[in-house]
Amino acid sequence: MYQKETHTRTLIKAISWRVIASLTTTILVYLFFGRLDLAATVGILETLIKIFLYYIHDRAWSKIPFGIKKVEPFVVWMTGLPLSGKTTIARYLKKLLEKEGIKVYHIDSSYIRNLIPEIGYERKDRIIHLKRVAHLAKILQDNNISTIASFVSPYTETREFVKNLCKNVLIVYVKADIKTCQKRDYKGVYKKALEGKIKNFTGISDVYEEPTDADIIIDTTKNSPEEAALKIYKKIKELFVK
Amino acid sequence: MYQKETHTRTLIKAISWRVIASLTTTILVYLFFGRLDLAATVGILETLIKIFLYYIHDRAWSKIPFGIKKVEPFVVWMTGLPLSGKTTIARYLKKLLEKEGIKVYHIDSSYIRNLIPEIGYERKDRIIHLKRVAHLAKILQDNNISTIASFVSPYTETREFVKNLCKNVLIVYVKADIKTCQKRDYKGVYKKALEGKIKNFTGISDVYEEPTDADIIIDTTKNSPEEAALKIYKKIKELFVK
Repeated sequence: MYQKETHTRTLIKAISWRVIASLTTTILVYLFFGRLDLAATVGILETLIKIFLYYIHDRAWSKIPFGIKKVEPFVVWMTGLPLSGKTTIARYLKKLLEKEGIKVYHIDSSYIRNLIPEIGYERKDRIIHLKRVAHLAKILQDNNISTIASFVSPYTETREFVKNLCKNVLIVYVKADIKTCQKRDYKGVYKKALEGKIKNFTGISDVYEEPTDADIIIDTTKNSPEEAALKIYKKIKELFVK
Repeated sequence: MYQKETHTRTLIKAISWRVIASLTTTILVYLFFGRLDLAATVGILETLIKIFLYYIHDRAWSKIPFGIKKVEPFVVWMTGLPLSGKTTIARYLKKLLEKEGIKVYHIDSSYIRNLIPEIGYERKDRIIHLKRVAHLAKILQDNNISTIASFVSPYTETREFVKNLCKNVLIVYVKADIKTCQKRDYKGVYKKALEGKIKNFTGISDVYEEPTDADIIIDTTKNSPEEAALKIYKKIKELFVK
């Protein structure tokens, strides 16, 4: 739900303020000088002059760029090994951005399954899948919604695709060595992958093509998720909020 | 791109107006009474009183619901035979809504192919496909974007699914008898379907389950696309813009 104000509301509000403001002036002048007729004349003149002045004032300000921030809808694309911390950082980042009034949608791999079918973990399937996610980001961007996408996205090809399809793309490489990720294995996925129960598992039985052109590299052994989110947040503000 | 104003801008703009307004009062009072000292005092007092009054005035208005319109993001789901005129009406409707400042996205079957794979025209495939489209509408709705979806959507099941998944759904049945649609066959699809070159073609070789619970029925033999769009537009304003 969002709100809009009608022109009628704005107009009536402006009139009610003008009445209060000019009455105040009239009363003040009357209290100082004791002449009700002159006080009333000052009040009426004030109304007429200030309606005109307010208009000029507002038009002048509309030409002053100071303090107007343009938000270019962006796409933060987070790549990294499974359990490197992408989603956690994405959630912190979303909070920071929303606090700043920036609309952002977190493309979540669990919800996305309803929209886009899981088609397997072979290289070609993964590429198709991530291209579809990129198209979703594009649709949202066309509607002024920024996105944070957190997907393993192991191949250079898909990351390049995102960059070409969408505008204002920030590739964030969430770097964690595989031993650290394995220690965090609360889902038990690394275990299953090592046992061969999950095939084409990035880092174990499938390649992770390290990004060479990432816009931001997060070293999760050095930065906490909060620090990482703040780092990305600052970059977003620098590049896309002007 | 969208714009935001910083607090600093709003503050400086308020101060610049207050200075202009109070100077105007001071000058007026001076011109009437010829006492600069008293005129300045009135100006200063006016500033102080009006800052306070403006605050009260604004707070009071924030409690008055008059003229505030709440837009509930909606989903207009247009169903009907191929070439019944869904897309044409959808485009007119989009224009009407945008003129009113209502953000709306037209889910277009040609673009959607990049996001969602074409999986065939068997009943089960079509159902899966349209459920995915419904999920896209849901994502957009969660981001305050209304949608117009124009798909043949021949089965009751999928239309029910949309209604359950999304809020504020308006099922629009674009009704045209099959002979009329065939006459409009500029794409040559009906011809191919009749020749058996396209299989599972709605209206020829696949069923169209006429909606019994449509919120709006457009009779395209009686209403022009513009009239149809206006009819839907009025219903949207009535139901979702309050």
